[in-house]
Amino acid sequence: MKLYRVLLYVALLWPALGFSQSEEDALFIKKIHDHILTDGNSYRWLKVVSEDIGGRLTGSEEAELAVSYTSQQLERLADKVTRQPVMVPHWVRGRKERATIINLPNGVKQDLNVTALGNSVGTGPEGITGEVIEVKSLDEVRSLGRSQIEGKIVFYNRPMDPTVINTFYAYGRAGDQRVNGPAVAAEYGAIGVIVRSLTTRTDNFPHTGTTRYKEGVPEIPAVAVSTKHADFLSRFVKRGKTEVYFETHCEMLEPKESHNVVAEIRGSEFPDEIILVGGHLDSWDLGGGAHDDGAGCVHAMEVMSAFKSLDYQPKRTLRVVLFMNEENGLAGGKEYARIAKDSGEFHLAAIESDAGGFTPQGFSCDAEDEVFANYFKQMSDWENLLEPYNLHFMKGGSGADISPLKDQKGLLIGFRPDSQRYFDYHHTSIDRLEAVNERELKLGAAAITSLIYLIDKYGFER
Amino acid sequence: MKLYRVLLYVALLWPALGFSQSEEDALFIKKIHDHILTDGNSYRWLKVVSEDIGGRLTGSEEAELAVSYTSQQLERLADKVTRQPVMVPHWVRGRKERATIINLPNGVKQDLNVTALGNSVGTGPEGITGEVIEVKSLDEVRSLGRSQIEGKIVFYNRPMDPTVINTFYAYGRAGDQRVNGPAVAAEYGAIGVIVRSLTTRTDNFPHTGTTRYKEGVPEIPAVAVSTKHADFLSRFVKRGKTEVYFETHCEMLEPKESHNVVAEIRGSEFPDEIILVGGHLDSWDLGGGAHDDGAGCVHAMEVMSAFKSLDYQPKRTLRVVLFMNEENGLAGGKEYARIAKDSGEFHLAAIESDAGGFTPQGFSCDAEDEVFANYFKQMSDWENLLEPYNLHFMKGGSGADISPLKDQKGLLIGFRPDSQRYFDYHHTSIDRLEAVNERELKLGAAAITSLIYLIDKYGFER
Repeated sequence: MKLYRVLLYVALLWPALGFSQSEEDALFIKKIHDHILTDGNSYRWLKVVSEDIGGRLTGSEEAELAVSYTSQQLERLADKVTRQPVMVPHWVRGRKERATIINLPNGVKQDLNVTALGNSVGTGPEGITGEVIEVKSLDEVRSLGRSQIEGKIVFYNRPMDPTVINTFYAYGRAGDQRVNGPAVAAEYGAIGVIVRSLTTRTDNFPHTGTTRYKEGVPEIPAVAVSTKHADFLSRFVKRGKTEVYFETHCEMLEPKESHNVVAEIRGSEFPDEIILVGGHLDSWDLGGGAHDDGAGCVHAMEVMSAFKSLDYQPKRTLRVVLFMNEENGLAGGKEYARIAKDSGEFHLAAIESDAGGFTPQGFSCDAEDEVFANYFKQMSDWENLLEPYNLHFMKGGSGADISPLKDQKGLLIGFRPDSQRYFDYHHTSIDRLEAVNERELKLGAAAITSLIYLIDKYGFER
Repeated sequence: MKLYRVLLYVALLWPALGFSQSEEDALFIKKIHDHILTDGNSYRWLKVVSEDIGGRLTGSEEAELAVSYTSQQLERLADKVTRQPVMVPHWVRGRKERATIINLPNGVKQDLNVTALGNSVGTGPEGITGEVIEVKSLDEVRSLGRSQIEGKIVFYNRPMDPTVINTFYAYGRAGDQRVNGPAVAAEYGAIGVIVRSLTTRTDNFPHTGTTRYKEGVPEIPAVAVSTKHADFLSRFVKRGKTEVYFETHCEMLEPKESHNVVAEIRGSEFPDEIILVGGHLDSWDLGGGAHDDGAGCVHAMEVMSAFKSLDYQPKRTLRVVLFMNEENGLAGGKEYARIAKDSGEFHLAAIESDAGGFTPQGFSCDAEDEVFANYFKQMSDWENLLEPYNLHFMKGGSGADISPLKDQKGLLIGFRPDSQRYFDYHHTSIDRLEAVNERELKLGAAAITSLIYLIDKYGFER
């Protein structure tokens, strides 16, 4: 328990002060945890957002309901709540997708669990039929070339590597198949794409997620297939010519207006130094968007709620931002940064929670090279205060929505909970409230609140 | 990534060696993880132990089935497998327990979710009826005294403190109510005891667990009540005289013979230095004993399996011990230590996994004072190798079964996974396979295997 050693040391040095600074901080951080673990609102809010409202795809009625509900809840806590208008893409899934292997022996048809990739075009009611060609990478498509790809359905089947301890790294390394695979396949004349779901589990749930077409290249329909059915399909492809039929009914409609929710408590001493904490309010439509990213939204809301309950008046401006459209466009994050820039605002720190509601492990920190070391060094002074809660600082990415703020030269921070179960649920129909443990969720909120308290109190020497 | 810095440093110092020692270790630890995460057996074994066999109460047929199954599996891996006979207590739950508040207004009867405490006596079919007196502590019973306690049912209702971050500490602080509460209440004439379940959740599952009577004091029936019904009962008690009826059909039968399972690979260089890894094979009867402690047993088995698969011949004797009767007697742990002592065996290290199959956080270490600092210092040299897996060493307890080995002056180690969800399941009907995440379970096995590899390879300077 290094903390107590530090406290003892500080207490011995300045006995005249009574409570040392560090002891005071340790006590307040404990108070934050006590309050959130016993009286926190995050789980209750998450229930409404993920269960009562449900999946909140950008442009949907549910997304707007979530804007209204969270705004209204934040109005009880903030000095000011703004619904910041953002033009967002409006992609809809339409009726249920389906896929079938159609040329099995004996005329048996084998359905596959699939779901359209976000932003993809649909096949329409007539569907598409083609021979499946299995590949492990985008480069394999390029080297096979048009002669082998044209007219076929490309099946990307490189699994997420289960031996990578942090599952987000494994996701990062497999994600190109989903994000860019359809565009690359289309360049070589493919008529459709099936992508193995991004999870290390072998199960029945297809994992959706965004894909990006390329200008000048045909937009071809693309689906994710569950890992169990990916293995199944692969076995058939290896045996011989395998044909699949699939149909999807998704389409990209006209852009429409949606909103970021921005709630603020003005700082009492340094109002021009903004500390942002946020998550993204939109989610995929398949489940309830509980871990991704209902958890991040209620984490952020809990920070403001805890400060209010504990009568802590921030010195710096605390801003809770619930971003719209992280999943299939990042329109909210970009628009927020544009307005902030135009208004000459400065974000001293921005923290995003978008890695689920699991047991907290720490924070990964990012900033422009010229300022990073200086910030990181100052934060390391706080490690002893956070160590009793198993929280550590590391260098790494922050969050998609806040990344456009990086050139303001503040510190960007990503909340990092345990990553082991995240991709069991990510972008599926089972990312629901029951996948979130109340205590783990609240510990996350308490971890973020504690760090913001320290940043607010001490700021950063620049 | 401190590891890489260390590797770089070592590589720069001894370029002539090719692979440095530390690099070789890092590679082997990665191999261990890769193997277990992709080809490990632990989850498959846990399915058989917790689901096909199920709850394995000491003395039950299921417990003996588990002895047979695990022995047989270990025979494929070990040089030698012994079923070490142990005389164990034989407590049985009998038919379903029940409890009811009988004097509610309008004659309504409210059932309470209860379960008998392990080792407690039953009420028999006639049950007991009494006025409930609620207390928060054993001391409160003592200060109320015989005048207020006699003839009543004492209701211990001090919740596990949700603000304690490590849930095992909170459990430790509340556990006296269950372990000693009935004996203390009986000293003052109580006729029965109801204990609030030991969990921070508010739910419907009663948590059993052992209780200890005191010589010369009457043995009175005792049950645990679910937290939801504890809150409910408490509200009625606060309103006025509340009477409860409960019946339990448990009884302590004659002791019988059971077994520890002891599997061994003899060390090639230092066969007299034993490294023990184990868990306990018995569990409560209510659920499947998946986290407690099926997980620990399959963790230990996986160590031997991984060494075998990776062709690693231990220098020291590796012994997998699956103890019998941790839950309600510790007969297995005591008998194992007695025999070890009689045979003049020396356990250089003993590691117990009995904290569930969750994401690993590290190891807590214990030894006699005179040797502890020396061992702990040597282990700290390995922290850089384990840090990429988020594993840390701490001072603390090890495990109940191995604790009788402490006077051998080896190092005792407790495997420490994330504790947040453990008491959601502990000693309940929902401690089943589906509560265990396969990847988290396997990471635990890999963590333990990695540490044992280091202890085996380097030993300890004494």
